[in-house]
Amino acid sequence: MNYATLDWQVDDGLLKLTLNRPELMNAFTVEMANELEHAFKRASLDDEVRVVLVTGAGRAFCAGMDLSVEGNVFGLDESLSPSLRDMHERMESAEIQNGVRDTGGQVTLAIRACRKPVVGAINGPAVGIGATMSLAMDFRLASEKARFGFVFGRLGIVPEACSSWFLPRIVGLQQALEWIYTADIFDANEALRGGLVRSIHSADTLLQEAEVFARRLVHGRSPVAIALSRQMLYRNSAQADPFEAHRIESLAMFYTSIGDGKEGVAAFLDKRAPNFTGKASELPAFYEQWVANSADEQI
Amino acid sequence: MNYATLDWQVDDGLLKLTLNRPELMNAFTVEMANELEHAFKRASLDDEVRVVLVTGAGRAFCAGMDLSVEGNVFGLDESLSPSLRDMHERMESAEIQNGVRDTGGQVTLAIRACRKPVVGAINGPAVGIGATMSLAMDFRLASEKARFGFVFGRLGIVPEACSSWFLPRIVGLQQALEWIYTADIFDANEALRGGLVRSIHSADTLLQEAEVFARRLVHGRSPVAIALSRQMLYRNSAQADPFEAHRIESLAMFYTSIGDGKEGVAAFLDKRAPNFTGKASELPAFYEQWVANSADEQI
Amino acid sequence: MNYATLDWQVDDGLLKLTLNRPELMNAFTVEMANELEHAFKRASLDDEVRVVLVTGAGRAFCAGMDLSVEGNVFGLDESLSPSLRDMHERMESAEIQNGVRDTGGQVTLAIRACRKPVVGAINGPAVGIGATMSLAMDFRLASEKARFGFVFGRLGIVPEACSSWFLPRIVGLQQALEWIYTADIFDANEALRGGLVRSIHSADTLLQEAEVFARRLVHGRSPVAIALSRQMLYRNSAQADPFEAHRIESLAMFYTSIGDGKEGVAAFLDKRAPNFTGKASELPAFYEQWVANSADEQI
Repeated sequence: MNYATLDWQVDDGLLKLTLNRPELMNAFTVEMANELEHAFKRASLDDEVRVVLVTGAGRAFCAGMDLSVEGNVFGLDESLSPSLRDMHERMESAEIQNGVRDTGGQVTLAIRACRKPVVGAINGPAVGIGATMSLAMDFRLASEKARFGFVFGRLGIVPEACSSWFLPRIVGLQQALEWIYTADIFDANEALRGGLVRSIHSADTLLQEAEVFARRLVHGRSPVAIALSRQMLYRNSAQADPFEAHRIESLAMFYTSIGDGKEGVAAFLDKRAPNFTGKASELPAFYEQWVANSADEQI
Repeated sequence: MNYATLDWQVDDGLLKLTLNRPELMNAFTVEMANELEHAFKRASLDDEVRVVLVTGAGRAFCAGMDLSVEGNVFGLDESLSPSLRDMHERMESAEIQNGVRDTGGQVTLAIRACRKPVVGAINGPAVGIGATMSLAMDFRLASEKARFGFVFGRLGIVPEACSSWFLPRIVGLQQALEWIYTADIFDANEALRGGLVRSIHSADTLLQEAEVFARRLVHGRSPVAIALSRQMLYRNSAQADPFEAHRIESLAMFYTSIGDGKEGVAAFLDKRAPNFTGKASELPAFYEQWVANSADEQI
Repeated sequence: MNYATLDWQVDDGLLKLTLNRPELMNAFTVEMANELEHAFKRASLDDEVRVVLVTGAGRAFCAGMDLSVEGNVFGLDESLSPSLRDMHERMESAEIQNGVRDTGGQVTLAIRACRKPVVGAINGPAVGIGATMSLAMDFRLASEKARFGFVFGRLGIVPEACSSWFLPRIVGLQQALEWIYTADIFDANEALRGGLVRSIHSADTLLQEAEVFARRLVHGRSPVAIALSRQMLYRNSAQADPFEAHRIESLAMFYTSIGDGKEGVAAFLDKRAPNFTGKASELPAFYEQWVANSADEQI
């Protein structure tokens, strides 16, 4: 599988997924959206991939939507008059799918549905969709040269890629509203103070340190437990009632306890490293039913 | 339109709304509640207003409910026995509307529904409803003389004005519970550490700096994009599933892209300032249906 | 009432509940789960208890599940094949109740339903269920010797005790995911930086300072207002729409205003200490109906 806009490299469990249009600062196109969605769905089910690291080729992470594209840069069908009802009843129709649905959102929903941890190594400017795409990643490690900008307001448009869901949950409402209204470009230090990024790294060592961090998340861990834990934290925490978490945790604890948990407890008592054999591609039976209850699995 | 308890001044897009009972430290009454609700609904639809700045006349922001009112200070009809069912089926009945519903909540729901950014300039004590009212504002800029107190517990009553929804979302559960239980008065530095206020300003310069900040939020921006972005961040982030954000963002991006977004992209490519013509009073057709799905639009 | 695994001591309104298996670092068993659930339900309705302080006997808070138990350490019935449907339709059946449901979750749901503030004094290692149990407490005050670890991943299992609901709400998604994936043990300073604990205390003074803090939360307060406020902050803030908070706050304000609020306002105007007579065991009529609407009251 070759991608035109991405580079896919797997090395010992770590997928390095590189946005690869360096001459254009990795500007985002409909083609890149489709390839990213494909790549995250593939990574989710490929047992050779334990963790995903996303970065940009060249000096930028992603400079935003490619505004140099001829005609309608957003790929919308301006002849339509979509209604809220269409967005509930016809999301999968070709007309709405291709002519109305936000391409960035289709990428971030695929990132959220991924069964592997996702680490963003923000090596330079992350602007517009470059910034919002990173919100669906579990962690944002920033180079000292990283820049962020939710610049939609300058163009007369609105935030996308499910950022209206992710950003307030990550940085709080007061900070989210300021960055969205002002539409300013800001640096890694402001991003760290605001809670957007996890840590700042020198430009020379970012990728290496991000790889060490990413491997540490999954080394010696059960891929089944990791996949379930990731989905549990995102999905259960967003429910109104913790009792919903109790339902899912009970099932996940039951099935991991009679699965990789047996080896885990045995290894702990024997004071040796565990040898987990579960696969993220084969999750317990309740999993499909659980996530199918969420609208986002309709993608 | 004259208000008895408020001062309304619009200057070049900025509405300065001043709580105006300085001799009583701007103590809150049922009349002030009604006037605030009216003022925010008016500001929402008045295209001359781009951003709202709220402050207090004299040395206080708002010292809380006016307990010097004769008789029942909360305006409740003590002959009623309201049930949870009443609050679902009869909220608009005169009996429940006038004799039971929390007046502070009617104000904060009107603030949340506003199509313009709302900046609070907390110039002095903000106590009780003075504190909870500020939570529905997008930002709290505090004078070094500001004081906050969620003092309900001292009076044997409970937090109101939708503060049980706003406060934990702004400062987290652990901090929110401490301020609510202790019912203490605390200063601007504690408010900043706890994440309640955005920034602290000298008493002399607060208003001027808050005005500069407020204007920066909307200068050169599309009123349509601002209005949609504000509602998207509050409403979408509170949904359980990011797919709901995807539905709304897709529509909002579609309609802004074929609206002010055309001018925005053209101006960006021409390296000139955009000339947006959209109006917050005329939002895309999906908007009314979207917000009508929320219970708070029943106010 | 005697507990085998707990010590229950009430002194002037403060219940000190001590995990009491010091020779085993207070390791968690099914018996301890049952006793904790019982103790929190009892504390909730006992008007002699105004506030709950939880700590551990000896040098640990709770070292996690007791893995030395013979056979199935989690008490699960491995002959079952529970489905998501079972968790919606048969939670109270003996089979699911005893053979599938997470015991830690039954404890944390009882803590959340408690009508009194709950303070955790984390005196030493809090690992596995020792860490997740503390998340349902309103505050975590840590000794400088406290250690935390969400170590489930090392054992091939998943986080439980409703921690997938609580942890991201307390510390944010980015921090929660890092602690869950890495499954590392970390110290009180990291816990403070990450927002997990409220404050750090010397090992010698933790208990004394935690008692002072706990008493300050309820001293001179209405038990009714405290109970309602606690449930309002947890439950209302998790709703999608602030209008739901408005419904409940209106009722809670109405009934406290004609209850302890009358004495509270009178005492305030008279500049004397209030003498509240309301009881947490006798909340207004709407309360039972409100919480019964939540799934977690089915425990």
